[in-house]
Amino acid sequence: MAKIPDATITRLVHYLRALERMEKAGQLRTSSDELARASGVTAFQVRKDLAYFGSYGTRGVGYTVPVLRRELAQILGLGRRWRLAIVGMGRLGQALADFYALSESYELVAGFDVSPEVIGRQVGPFTVEPVEKLPQIVPESHVEIGILTVPEAAAQQAAEALVAAGVRGILNFTPAILKLPEQVAIENADFMAGLSRLSFFMLNPRWREEMMG
Amino acid sequence: MAKIPDATITRLVHYLRALERMEKAGQLRTSSDELARASGVTAFQVRKDLAYFGSYGTRGVGYTVPVLRRELAQILGLGRRWRLAIVGMGRLGQALADFYALSESYELVAGFDVSPEVIGRQVGPFTVEPVEKLPQIVPESHVEIGILTVPEAAAQQAAEALVAAGVRGILNFTPAILKLPEQVAIENADFMAGLSRLSFFMLNPRWREEMMG
Repeated sequence: MAKIPDATITRLVHYLRALERMEKAGQLRTSSDELARASGVTAFQVRKDLAYFGSYGTRGVGYTVPVLRRELAQILGLGRRWRLAIVGMGRLGQALADFYALSESYELVAGFDVSPEVIGRQVGPFTVEPVEKLPQIVPESHVEIGILTVPEAAAQQAAEALVAAGVRGILNFTPAILKLPEQVAIENADFMAGLSRLSFFMLNPRWREEMMG
Repeated sequence: MAKIPDATITRLVHYLRALERMEKAGQLRTSSDELARASGVTAFQVRKDLAYFGSYGTRGVGYTVPVLRRELAQILGLGRRWRLAIVGMGRLGQALADFYALSESYELVAGFDVSPEVIGRQVGPFTVEPVEKLPQIVPESHVEIGILTVPEAAAQQAAEALVAAGVRGILNFTPAILKLPEQVAIENADFMAGLSRLSFFMLNPRWREEMMG
């Protein structure tokens, strides 16, 4: 299997969104040109990204929208529903709960906090529970992915509690560098890192053009 | 100038955090091994990442903590304060405002919304203003970076308003693919894309190991 750049996975998400829009509009065929325009990249990039996963297009004919949509959803693990829990139900946790309530592929089934002000609050389909109940509720609710929105100092401990309770993937909104067993997938969604990348690119516009895919 | 992988910039942020902790603790020297352990990568990766920006270490001696810390901060544009505005002061916008209030390098100076429930609310040092006032307030407040936390359907228009008002960088929390002039830097901090990458890696652990730096 060829090495796949991280950015390719992010772009697959964008291609998938464009395909979903096309399918809803009843469009049957598309091209790498059209996918590229919808995703803000070049047609060459689209073909290169899709080639990592096998060849889906036919020269001169392009791609069949529902087929490619289904294949990409499958590749990204969106052909099923994933069960999520949020640890840290402050403002950010609650904002994320609003957000994931709209998703078809991700189902938020539990939320935990340490603050008496937040514990017991109804958030969508569940009640915020004290973090002490995490080891019991996470396996019972078949949670697969944990979302960390706790203060940085509490991040490692909360992540370990999630992993001990059977969680295999963590979306980490804290700036902490988590140290977890290799088989646990970690995605960092650190707001400060996003801003630092932005200020780097604003100061170094030439380097941005030269970035690798 | 060599091509710099996007992931390198993210790792520079992590190295910088480790160096800040060391400097606060009064530590004068460090090694690529120590930086690697603190950042969850290999020492080879640390040396490779730093090599893009010139050689800062001395073989057998390592790095001088305050020097490397200052250099990395400079590279990432953190040697100064950036002025931010948030468009979309719902729960997510307010959570981000809490977050950026703690930062030394980023100063949140304005927030905008369309909802009468939010407009007029005091958030830290400023009052949430109606989005109609954006074209006036953004230049007056010397805003350089805009943070987009509006619904997807409003994202492109809000981004264009920011750019028209002089903003050169946008941190986009919406799933919209923004179409903006080339000289505007865009960072996407899309929660759904983060989850999709996570579920991809959980389904394809072997590919994760083979990911490019």
